[in-house]
Amino acid sequence: MAKDKKVEQITDMEVDFAQWFTDVCIKAELVDYSGVKGLFILRPYGYAIWENIQRILDEKFKETGHENVSMPLLIPESLLQKEKDHVKGFAPECAWVTVGGSEELPERLSIRPTSETLFCEHWSHVVHSWRDLPCLYNQWCSVLRWEKTTRPFLRGREFLWQEGHTLHATEAEAREETLRMLEIYADTCENYLAMPVIRGNKTEKEKFAGAVNTYTIECMMHDHKALQSGTSHYFGDGFARAFDITFTDKDNTLHYPHETSWGLSTRIIGGIIMTHGDNSGLVLPPRIAPVQVIVLPIAAHKPGVAERAETLVTRLKAAGVRVKGDFSDNSPGWKFANWEMKGVPLRVELGPKDIENDQCVAVRRDNGEKIPVPLDELETRIPALLDDVQQGLFDKARRNLDEHTYPAHTLEEAKTIQAERGGFIKTMWCGDPACELEMKDKAGMSSRCIPFAQERLGDVCPVCGRPAREMVYWGVAY
Amino acid sequence: MAKDKKVEQITDMEVDFAQWFTDVCIKAELVDYSGVKGLFILRPYGYAIWENIQRILDEKFKETGHENVSMPLLIPESLLQKEKDHVKGFAPECAWVTVGGSEELPERLSIRPTSETLFCEHWSHVVHSWRDLPCLYNQWCSVLRWEKTTRPFLRGREFLWQEGHTLHATEAEAREETLRMLEIYADTCENYLAMPVIRGNKTEKEKFAGAVNTYTIECMMHDHKALQSGTSHYFGDGFARAFDITFTDKDNTLHYPHETSWGLSTRIIGGIIMTHGDNSGLVLPPRIAPVQVIVLPIAAHKPGVAERAETLVTRLKAAGVRVKGDFSDNSPGWKFANWEMKGVPLRVELGPKDIENDQCVAVRRDNGEKIPVPLDELETRIPALLDDVQQGLFDKARRNLDEHTYPAHTLEEAKTIQAERGGFIKTMWCGDPACELEMKDKAGMSSRCIPFAQERLGDVCPVCGRPAREMVYWGVAY
Repeated sequence: MAKDKKVEQITDMEVDFAQWFTDVCIKAELVDYSGVKGLFILRPYGYAIWENIQRILDEKFKETGHENVSMPLLIPESLLQKEKDHVKGFAPECAWVTVGGSEELPERLSIRPTSETLFCEHWSHVVHSWRDLPCLYNQWCSVLRWEKTTRPFLRGREFLWQEGHTLHATEAEAREETLRMLEIYADTCENYLAMPVIRGNKTEKEKFAGAVNTYTIECMMHDHKALQSGTSHYFGDGFARAFDITFTDKDNTLHYPHETSWGLSTRIIGGIIMTHGDNSGLVLPPRIAPVQVIVLPIAAHKPGVAERAETLVTRLKAAGVRVKGDFSDNSPGWKFANWEMKGVPLRVELGPKDIENDQCVAVRRDNGEKIPVPLDELETRIPALLDDVQQGLFDKARRNLDEHTYPAHTLEEAKTIQAERGGFIKTMWCGDPACELEMKDKAGMSSRCIPFAQERLGDVCPVCGRPAREMVYWGVAY
Repeated sequence: MAKDKKVEQITDMEVDFAQWFTDVCIKAELVDYSGVKGLFILRPYGYAIWENIQRILDEKFKETGHENVSMPLLIPESLLQKEKDHVKGFAPECAWVTVGGSEELPERLSIRPTSETLFCEHWSHVVHSWRDLPCLYNQWCSVLRWEKTTRPFLRGREFLWQEGHTLHATEAEAREETLRMLEIYADTCENYLAMPVIRGNKTEKEKFAGAVNTYTIECMMHDHKALQSGTSHYFGDGFARAFDITFTDKDNTLHYPHETSWGLSTRIIGGIIMTHGDNSGLVLPPRIAPVQVIVLPIAAHKPGVAERAETLVTRLKAAGVRVKGDFSDNSPGWKFANWEMKGVPLRVELGPKDIENDQCVAVRRDNGEKIPVPLDELETRIPALLDDVQQGLFDKARRNLDEHTYPAHTLEEAKTIQAERGGFIKTMWCGDPACELEMKDKAGMSSRCIPFAQERLGDVCPVCGRPAREMVYWGVAY
């Protein structure tokens, strides 16, 4: 076992969750560090997860009429400054190109931190008539934000994402789009990533730079902290005015169109790790796992075992399962640990005794359950077991969310719950940013969202005692 | 027709081929200019062509065991300098980030012009044993090269591409990989993009910075100039030595692995335009056309026509054809011109008379031929016609290549042919770079490649008269 160096012990998640997270990222071979702080390498296994998420989202985007485009990597400083709230939000974290070839540039160029300004400039060229609307665009790319502290997936100076940008004739249509895309994110999280979400509206303080409204889906991690997992913004006609985008309507009058944008990034992979992972490593939901089933021959030197195991791989592949066989000469112990670390949802073992009994044994990664599967039922039982794992992961995450969400009626109560138990805390709120700030100062929590699913927990704001307007979710966020 | 401003006349390709090309790029809505010179916007129609090419290549890469990854956007200057030939080739055209947030960086960072150095640094971390080889990696991304003159697709300061990077235990395996990937490019060009290629080896002078060998596929454009359409490089162990990548082989000795890289970019879309386009605009090979068939109702106001045309769209979609119907209120004349400009391979017209005759009329974009198609044969005849268009485009491009490739036996003859007729000129060559340079100076042509398919045109080098070593293709290149 001397050569089994890859599967070293990882830090216990209950001892040091942050270190556990980093250990999983490295040991499951998801990322590597590069020579530039905050710029991470997505290794094949990590990138394959992203590709699966891309495929799911891209299909949903296209089904809802969106088209992919490619915008430039660089934004002239003057262009970035056109919308004043927007530049205020992003200028402090831009990376600036000042030299091209051997020449100083006359104007410095920012690597895109986000591309609203680029889309708007393009639309100002090509949108003239109601016939040109709506523009339903998306791009898959990376963006740069010069953050001070960085962590794999959760906070990179560069990260991969998709950014959707759309332009509509009316406010109603733009608002509908904003919510449609949020719902696509929510559906993807819940039904593919097995991550239950809270859908809601960001407060004024927490919304995107330049937006009228920012909608969000918030997920709870294993350590009960919040992860903002996808956002969708309604901009009104603010950008259109700043960039002078107008269109002639059917009645021959000139109007400013309404804009939205929405994004989901590789941050979500950090969310998957922190939602489902355990002390043996990563645990992947079957629907986005690069390898759904790993077939391991037991006592593979015995005649017929390896060949029979190969047959299982072939049969499962034909049944549409993403399957691999591990026929390397590593020890079974190393193989178990390695594929557990990588979070493969099902391990299928086949040994001489199994062959005698015309069965194999499926082992669930999420709960360790061992299930004998008759070989002639392989093609139906394995996909069904994958569905069980998918549902099991969602149910467990749902329980975590439900069991660590608490109502509070006073600031003191909110503070105590957060300090003693963590999690999401629901309170009423008057709507005053001053109270939001006080909650942050006193209880150490930011507002996560004003949920669409409102409850009436009381009549007054727990901070100031004035009449409450709505319920807010609070939490400590990544 | 006043509103039909989109389909203005484009420049005649025989009058000004360069302006014709730019006109097609803009009028077919493939690209838009951005605020930064040489950074182009790929609009939905242009990007959809790239997505189709991506899908074809990505599938071939995966079938041959390659995995996608994501490397950082930025390369520290010191890292770029590690391989001396490589930095000499790329440093003059790097774009440099010197400020992050509000701080001057201690070391300037280049936006990747290509990523060999990043892959090598990563491999130096993770490759230790023969068990870790081969590494068969690819990434889809954009790169920046600060070019002086720029044109859509053909020469951008930013362009989209894929870059494959692989690492192997032996030279033989790495060389095999280099040729395998060149063949994938050649197959994609010929069988999907309908562009016949010349496969060959670049001369020392024309090879990639840092490579031992560069293989290329060269295509002939409509104006008889050459387009280098994809390249594959064998690096030997030069990068491995520069980056100190070693592995322990089965016999427990330490070795340097052998490296390859290979890339194909959005430049190929420029090639598609210049190979197949005509004075009505773009002409797209069916296998990569975003819209393969446009269904146009004729006299759509007459009862039943629009509905019947809709049925054709539905049936063709069900048959796996990428089809659209144009039911807008634009005039038929405008619609014809618009979809011709966009190069849609087949137009299917349906009018009242066609309905009476239980037929529709398919019109080929490549040669204008009108083919009546019985409605009950729609699902077989239309895909067959698309195959005909695909083959027709390839045959035409093949004829263009064959008819404009000339052998020459003296420098004077080569010069005269190039001046009077253009095209590819084949000559013998002694192998001396001085003769290559003289051919360039005197006849205005660069060596395109030393083709794999060698011919013995004579015994001496047409420049110096010394014994010839091999045959070379020469041409004026984009």
